[in-house]
Amino acid sequence: MSDIIQKLIQGFQVLPGVGPKTAQRFTYHLLERKKDSGLNLAHQIDNTLNLIKHCQSCRNFTEHDQCDICQNPKRQPHQICIVESPQDIMSIEQTGCYKGHYFVLMGRLSPLDGLGPKEIGLDILFSRLLHEQTIVSEIIIATNSTVEGEATAFYISEQLASTSIQITRLASGIPRGGEIEYMDPHTIAHSFQSRQEITSIEQ
Amino acid sequence: MSDIIQKLIQGFQVLPGVGPKTAQRFTYHLLERKKDSGLNLAHQIDNTLNLIKHCQSCRNFTEHDQCDICQNPKRQPHQICIVESPQDIMSIEQTGCYKGHYFVLMGRLSPLDGLGPKEIGLDILFSRLLHEQTIVSEIIIATNSTVEGEATAFYISEQLASTSIQITRLASGIPRGGEIEYMDPHTIAHSFQSRQEITSIEQ
Repeated sequence: MSDIIQKLIQGFQVLPGVGPKTAQRFTYHLLERKKDSGLNLAHQIDNTLNLIKHCQSCRNFTEHDQCDICQNPKRQPHQICIVESPQDIMSIEQTGCYKGHYFVLMGRLSPLDGLGPKEIGLDILFSRLLHEQTIVSEIIIATNSTVEGEATAFYISEQLASTSIQITRLASGIPRGGEIEYMDPHTIAHSFQSRQEITSIEQ
Repeated sequence: MSDIIQKLIQGFQVLPGVGPKTAQRFTYHLLERKKDSGLNLAHQIDNTLNLIKHCQSCRNFTEHDQCDICQNPKRQPHQICIVESPQDIMSIEQTGCYKGHYFVLMGRLSPLDGLGPKEIGLDILFSRLLHEQTIVSEIIIATNSTVEGEATAFYISEQLASTSIQITRLASGIPRGGEIEYMDPHTIAHSFQSRQEITSIEQ
């Protein structure tokens, strides 16, 4: 087989979940049927990877100095939601339930991988909070409900304990529509401990 | 979300089997972790789609005028195996059982899709056979065992019936290791009709 085609098949395998067979399918699909769209895709990958950088306030991906959300005057500046990745912002934005600002850690505390507070941008967050101290009234920690996500949430809440900012964490429990029969023991145990009075849920 | 990122997510959806969620995963994976490999991938897509053309003799993909197989003096010039796509060549080459030349139809006869004999390069094949008439002794038709693949095989064999070239077709039947219990009725019926004497199989 042609070396050039072989290299492209290897190149596609950098994508997550793409092995040799799928990469081969992608390659021949573009060659046989989608030459123009393929050239367009190449241009877009190049363009995106060259132009996209991190927002100076929240570390979300953007092609400007500040991202669309940080620039939007309609967003509430007194709430900051801390997430692990830009994809989390997309998922939260799709619900339309949150109108505040964000801060993206681009990861989570993971000392074994060399990810300390500085690597996940906490120095940027804390210096931002120092400047916006009078504006920000609530930090919503929306790191994942994994061991590392919980440790990160705990570390951030500890660091901010001395400030007057209210620190909250996304509720953890049985997903809406979930059946207790199929839920894992940790989730059931946690949802027992964190059980709420029905009146407070109805609020 | 950034327009540029949105465009790349759309761009990835040109790949077969890639929907919005997978495209999003690809995009953020490259942005977050694989910037260099991503730029490399963009370059390879561009390079491949611009440089790869069809081999003048067999229509396989190649960056040269003739593909590696057609140029290889060790390949037997008296056999030509007709396949539907370059991927079929890859599959056959992996077995190492065939040492002849190929001809790629880049499709199959499909009048409803506007694919007639000319669109699948049969004029090129027939004019090649006219020149190599004294060399080529066997044409192995390896189109798929689908309705269209069979029709294409039948058409080619009809067209070449008047020549002295031997026309063969890949054997059709129960796959090696296959269980009759789970085989479809068409395959079982066909393998009954095409049953072979055990001595002839052992040859």
